[in-house]
Amino acid sequence: MQTLTVDLGERSYPIHIGAGLLRQAELILPHLAQPRAAIVTNTTVGPLYLGRLRGVLDAAGVETLPIVLPDGEVYKNWETLNLIFDALLENRAERKTTLIALGGGVIGDLTGFAAACYQRGVPFIQVPTTLLAQVDSSVGGKTGINHPLGKNMIGAFYQPKLVLADTDTLKTLPDRELAAGLAEVIKYGLIRDLPFFTWLETNMERLLARDTQALTHAIYHSCRNKAEVVAADERESGQRALLNLGHTFGHAIEAGMGYGNWLHGEAVAAGTLLAADLSRRMGLIGEADVERMNALFRRARLPVQAPALGVDAYLSYMGVDKKVEGGRMRFVLLRRLGEAFVTAEVPPELLHATLAEATA
Amino acid sequence: MQTLTVDLGERSYPIHIGAGLLRQAELILPHLAQPRAAIVTNTTVGPLYLGRLRGVLDAAGVETLPIVLPDGEVYKNWETLNLIFDALLENRAERKTTLIALGGGVIGDLTGFAAACYQRGVPFIQVPTTLLAQVDSSVGGKTGINHPLGKNMIGAFYQPKLVLADTDTLKTLPDRELAAGLAEVIKYGLIRDLPFFTWLETNMERLLARDTQALTHAIYHSCRNKAEVVAADERESGQRALLNLGHTFGHAIEAGMGYGNWLHGEAVAAGTLLAADLSRRMGLIGEADVERMNALFRRARLPVQAPALGVDAYLSYMGVDKKVEGGRMRFVLLRRLGEAFVTAEVPPELLHATLAEATA
Repeated sequence: MQTLTVDLGERSYPIHIGAGLLRQAELILPHLAQPRAAIVTNTTVGPLYLGRLRGVLDAAGVETLPIVLPDGEVYKNWETLNLIFDALLENRAERKTTLIALGGGVIGDLTGFAAACYQRGVPFIQVPTTLLAQVDSSVGGKTGINHPLGKNMIGAFYQPKLVLADTDTLKTLPDRELAAGLAEVIKYGLIRDLPFFTWLETNMERLLARDTQALTHAIYHSCRNKAEVVAADERESGQRALLNLGHTFGHAIEAGMGYGNWLHGEAVAAGTLLAADLSRRMGLIGEADVERMNALFRRARLPVQAPALGVDAYLSYMGVDKKVEGGRMRFVLLRRLGEAFVTAEVPPELLHATLAEATA
Repeated sequence: MQTLTVDLGERSYPIHIGAGLLRQAELILPHLAQPRAAIVTNTTVGPLYLGRLRGVLDAAGVETLPIVLPDGEVYKNWETLNLIFDALLENRAERKTTLIALGGGVIGDLTGFAAACYQRGVPFIQVPTTLLAQVDSSVGGKTGINHPLGKNMIGAFYQPKLVLADTDTLKTLPDRELAAGLAEVIKYGLIRDLPFFTWLETNMERLLARDTQALTHAIYHSCRNKAEVVAADERESGQRALLNLGHTFGHAIEAGMGYGNWLHGEAVAAGTLLAADLSRRMGLIGEADVERMNALFRRARLPVQAPALGVDAYLSYMGVDKKVEGGRMRFVLLRRLGEAFVTAEVPPELLHATLAEATA
């Protein structure tokens, strides 16, 4: 097991990474405020891991309330959130009852936001079971739901008490979802960690083969990068925005294709290559850099071609993105591999060219 | 104008109290992150004060988006909250767009919660237009909505950047709502400020006559008491619970009578007298203390008789209250006039007697 800490003063919390962690109640117990927890999961993950987690907690004297939600990004909305509130209120969950998110990013976002809002805030623990959730969404305290007019538009910054990333849960992950998680893993290398990017170029096949040691290494270094960024900028006023490399384009792809059709990581992969194309057109990186990125995403079995939504559709979807400031769009671009930056100084004609050509 | 500060470190904010403040844009401008604001109000307050506030801000170069909601506690729910999100998204409100709550407690709670959640948090300003909101709900950062299974069950602790309490707005307040506000004013005296309670006994008629000087004094000392409590305990882990004197019973009254039929302050008045009755039965205060409280509430034209819901209904409604801990109910009781405390050590037979006799 490897452990690192997200350093946020009194809101600091540990991330444990390794095999078999779901069987170790002693990792969870110190973080419960009372011997009572609601475990929120979905119809896919529940049958696989809910019994294991409940069994371990029940044996340790913790009363557990299971809340099983439908599976999918399309359910990341108010109606599903309200199913959690209904169950908590019907079972008289209290201010010290901990919510445990057992699942992927959607479950983590929903559960974290429910914890932020239920009785104005109850403790919660992240037990991410997808690679995407283990390396990204479970760390950093971003929670929320989608709105018909925009993704993740309603939510809260709300930190968990603990993140438990059990690599065993990745054994049941569909190939497509493993790849989607790798998109965010690659992102950390691109924005601030060239040695990690290089390590990924060497070890991509081990990751695809789900080698436990390689996965633990990749998750640890992804979380370490994310934890450092979050510790420096919890509420995204500055460098945290770097984590959104590929996301402005990616959100447009997800929205334009209909939420749930492209996986988030797939949209981020294609979106990151749009950001790379724009960076290249602006003279920041070279053609060879773009090719190197393209090759790694392709080896990770990720889409490298953005869908042809049309320039206007892209611009429209990007316009309601959270990174808009003073009516101007801000972009995360690459200065070189391993170094991203935020800018609002993007020549409109180059953006247009990227959207017109790279998505044709 | 009188000013005091809610001292919460980097989240500190001023409260301005006085006549004519709505006409002074210079009080608001320093707190806007961009010259853009959404003003949330309702169909009752909007026609009275929205034009005044917009005119002042427009003249100062601030672009304003009005969002007018239906009026009433029954609308303090997710559907109404979503009307705010819809308007913000349709108008592309950004992370630096400030939400201004112009109205009573329901508008403040809805707008504050919307600000807490929209894009995971945007700035907001409270412009309370009822006495209740000026002395209580606009200060301290409690925001939220009701759920069919419980009042204020979904929400956030989220502090405003500024509270602007213009006593002129009280001139249009219905008598019944003025009285409801006085219930919370009296509460501050009871829980921690006997001199203020005594001042109220001397000046109740001036308050009912809406004497500006008396109102400013009462609002200032109410906010001062609340600010001191909130500064010591922002998230209600300790002494902030004292502010809930009468509220456990009061919430049961509101829920039992159907939200919106009793005003919150009315329920708090009757609930406070239940807490007083229970305190008397426990030998903490005397019959004369209860009578003195009863007399002041009656002079404030507040109900002093709780409705006859039945003991079981009271207990049931109180059971889902947020102050439940470890399955036991916690009560705010009076040790003497001017000193409240929290306890879970309430003999069930005395609670039963209070509910059976005082609500008969």
